[in-house]
Amino acid sequence: MRPRVVIVGAGFAGLYAARALRHAPVEITVIDRTNHHLFQPLLSQVATAALAPSDITAPIRWLLRHHRNADVVLGEVTGIDVEARRVAIHGRDTPVSYDYLILATGSHHAYFGHPDWEPVAPGLKSVDDALEIRGRFLRAFERAEWATEPAERAAHMTFVVVGGGPTGVELAGVMPAIAREALRSNFRYIDTAQTRVILVEGGDRLLASFPEHLSARAKRDLEDIGVEVRLRSLVSDITPHAVHIGDEWIDSRTVFWAAGNEASYLGRALGVPLDGAGRVIVEPDLSIPGHPEVFVAGDLADFTHGPKRVPGVCPAAMQQGVHAANMIVRSLRRQQRKAFRYRNKGDLATIGRSRAIADFGSFTMAGRIAWWLWLFLHILYLAGFRNRLSVLLQWGYAYVTYERGVRLITGTERSSASG
Amino acid sequence: MRPRVVIVGAGFAGLYAARALRHAPVEITVIDRTNHHLFQPLLSQVATAALAPSDITAPIRWLLRHHRNADVVLGEVTGIDVEARRVAIHGRDTPVSYDYLILATGSHHAYFGHPDWEPVAPGLKSVDDALEIRGRFLRAFERAEWATEPAERAAHMTFVVVGGGPTGVELAGVMPAIAREALRSNFRYIDTAQTRVILVEGGDRLLASFPEHLSARAKRDLEDIGVEVRLRSLVSDITPHAVHIGDEWIDSRTVFWAAGNEASYLGRALGVPLDGAGRVIVEPDLSIPGHPEVFVAGDLADFTHGPKRVPGVCPAAMQQGVHAANMIVRSLRRQQRKAFRYRNKGDLATIGRSRAIADFGSFTMAGRIAWWLWLFLHILYLAGFRNRLSVLLQWGYAYVTYERGVRLITGTERSSASG
Repeated sequence: MRPRVVIVGAGFAGLYAARALRHAPVEITVIDRTNHHLFQPLLSQVATAALAPSDITAPIRWLLRHHRNADVVLGEVTGIDVEARRVAIHGRDTPVSYDYLILATGSHHAYFGHPDWEPVAPGLKSVDDALEIRGRFLRAFERAEWATEPAERAAHMTFVVVGGGPTGVELAGVMPAIAREALRSNFRYIDTAQTRVILVEGGDRLLASFPEHLSARAKRDLEDIGVEVRLRSLVSDITPHAVHIGDEWIDSRTVFWAAGNEASYLGRALGVPLDGAGRVIVEPDLSIPGHPEVFVAGDLADFTHGPKRVPGVCPAAMQQGVHAANMIVRSLRRQQRKAFRYRNKGDLATIGRSRAIADFGSFTMAGRIAWWLWLFLHILYLAGFRNRLSVLLQWGYAYVTYERGVRLITGTERSSASG
Repeated sequence: MRPRVVIVGAGFAGLYAARALRHAPVEITVIDRTNHHLFQPLLSQVATAALAPSDITAPIRWLLRHHRNADVVLGEVTGIDVEARRVAIHGRDTPVSYDYLILATGSHHAYFGHPDWEPVAPGLKSVDDALEIRGRFLRAFERAEWATEPAERAAHMTFVVVGGGPTGVELAGVMPAIAREALRSNFRYIDTAQTRVILVEGGDRLLASFPEHLSARAKRDLEDIGVEVRLRSLVSDITPHAVHIGDEWIDSRTVFWAAGNEASYLGRALGVPLDGAGRVIVEPDLSIPGHPEVFVAGDLADFTHGPKRVPGVCPAAMQQGVHAANMIVRSLRRQQRKAFRYRNKGDLATIGRSRAIADFGSFTMAGRIAWWLWLFLHILYLAGFRNRLSVLLQWGYAYVTYERGVRLITGTERSSASG
C-alpha cells in the first residue's frame, strides 16, 4: 500500500499540493466542502456582476481528472485526530486515515466579536457570498426606484463597504461605475448617478500591505471615481437601516463587510499553538510541532521564520502547497526537509474599472497600465480552467459597453436587510 | 395623462406585449417577481450544466432600457381588483392602478394533489429550479462515489424523470451522455457509465403533441442513448429513497418532476371562468368576459376559439402578448378588435446531445439535422440578449469535448433528498 496523503481544502494551497504530488508514489484524498475550486482573486468580479460564477470556478474532480492517484471527496471535515492520524467527515461513519496530512482550509471573514452584523453586512469568501452581494446590490436600486420618501430613496442608494484592503477597495471601486454607466438608462425615477459609495477603513491608509505612496494613489483614484473614502474610522454598530461610523449614523440599507479574516476553526483541532488570528504557527518546513507528518499551508498557516510574515495571498498559498507536497516526497525518499521560502513576485490591486496599483519590490506601478497587467496576469492564471475565453469575452463586453452581463438576482434573500 | 398599461409577468407573453407597445401613447408598468426575463426553452441546458444561468437570462430593465414609456417593478402581485382596476403588490402599501391590464403569469409545475412530492422531486420552471436540479444531479455522483453498499451506490446512480413531455425528454436525454462522457474520468470508485436514467410517462407515447411516428422515433432515440422509457406507467408514490411506479418500487435517490403544469393562481383573482387546469378561458380577442380592458396572454390563457387549442409554447405566448398589445392600441384608436389567430410555425424537441424531432405540419424531420435546426433557431431567438456568443462558445465546447462547463454546485440543498 502506498502511503495516503489527505489534503483538506482545495483552494490554491490544497490544489497545488495535489498537483505537485501527481507523480509521487502516494494515494491522495482531497476533501472539500464544495465541488469546485474557486479562483478567489476574481470573486469581486462575480459580486459586481461582471463575471458569472462558472467563469471563475472549476470542478475539483475535473481539475484532477488525469491524476490517477487522487480521489476527491465532497464533504466537510469536522475533526482531526493527530494521534490516530485520521480526519472525521460530517455525515460519514468511518473517518479517513492518513499517513500525511496537508491542512489548507484557509480563512473566512470575521466580525470581531459582532457575529450579529453578519446578516446585515455579508462578507465575500465563497461563490454563494458573491451571489448574495450581487443580489443585494442590484435589489437596492429596485427598492430605491419604488421608494416614496426621498430619505428612504437616498438610504437605498447609499452603499457602505467596511474595510480598506484589496477586497474592499475592489468592491467599492467598481460600484460607482456600474451605477452611473450600466444601470443609469434602466431606471425611470431614480438617477443612479447619485449613488453614494462609502469605503470605511479603521487604519490611516488603504491597502496597508502596499507602499505608502501607492495607498495614497489608490485613495486619490477612488475619490476620482466617486467613492467617499473614510480613513481612521471605526464602525461601532450596523443595523438594517444605518451604520454607525465614529459618532455619525449613516443611513444605508446595504453594507458589505471586507474588514478582516479569521482562520478556519480546523486549526484548533491540531492541538498546537495558534497566533492571535487563529492561524497555526508552523515550523520552517510548514509542518506542525511534534507532528512532522502534518502540514499547514495557505491562509491557515502563520509562517514566522522568514524576514517578513508571509501574506495571505494566492501566490503564497500556491507556494506553500507545493512546498508541503515536496516535503512529503523528501520524507518518502528519506531526504532531509528544507525550510519554506516565500518568493514574492509582486502584489497587485485593482481600483475600479481601469486602474490598478502594482508593487514589485524594486519598482512600483499605478494607473491604466497596471490595470492591463492585472487583467493579463489574471487571465493567464486562469490557465487550467477552460473559462479563459469566456472571461475574456465577458470582460471585453463589459469594458467596451459599460454593461454588466451577469445582472441576475437568484435565490431568496438570506435575511432581510431592508424590509 | 396617457393611459396606463400594467403587464404582470415578463415571460415571453409579457415581454413581447411591452415591446409591441413601445411607440404606443401609453405608460407601461411591467411587474415581475424576478429581475430577469428567462429564455425558458434553454432552461434544461442550465439544469444539465451545459449553460450558465446568465447565458439564458437578461435583466428586464435592460431589455426595456430604450422604451421610454416603460417602468419595471420587481415585486410579486398578490391580488387584482378588476372593478377598481388595480393590482396589489406584496410589501407595498399603495396598489398600482391600470387602464389596461395584461396578465401573463404563466404556469408552474404541479404535483396533482401530491404537494408532498415537491421536496423530493423538484420541477423545472425557474433559474433557481435549474440550479437545484443541477446540484442534485451532480451531488448524486459524489454520494455514489463514497457509498459503501453496492445497493446504495446503485440507488444514487439511478435517476427517475417523471413526465414524457419536452422537458422530461430533454432532461432524461442528456443525462446518460453526461454520465458516460463528461464525468467518467473524474471518479475513481464508480463507473459512471452504469448510470440508470428512467423516463416515466403515464400516457401511451412520449411528446404527445407531436405526430405519432415522431413520438416513436423519440422513444427509439432515447433508448439508443441509454434511457429506459416506461410508457403507460403511473407514479403512485415518491419517497427520498424510492419511486413507486405501477407495482414496482425503484430505488432512486434523485427524482425530477416534469409531469405537468398548473396555471398561475392569479387567474383566480379575475373572477371569471377557468378551465380544468386553472387557466383563464379568454374571449376571441384575449380579453376576459365583461372586462375588455383586461387581457390574459401566454400559458395562463385558455384560447378555445381556434381550430385547435393553442399549445403552451413560447411562440404562442409571444404571439398572444403582441396581440393583446395590438388590441389595446386599437381600443385607443377606437378601432374594432380582432380575434387572435395562432400561427403555428412548427414544433421542435431535442433528444439528447445531437438529435431532435421537428413537426412543421406539412412535413416532419428527425435526427441530427433537426438538432442543428433546433440549435440554430434557439441561438437566433436569443437575439436581443447579448448572450448569444457566450452560449455558442459554451455549446461548442460541450459538443466538441463532451465536457460540461458549468458543473458547479451552489447554495445549500433545499431539502435533503438523500440524507
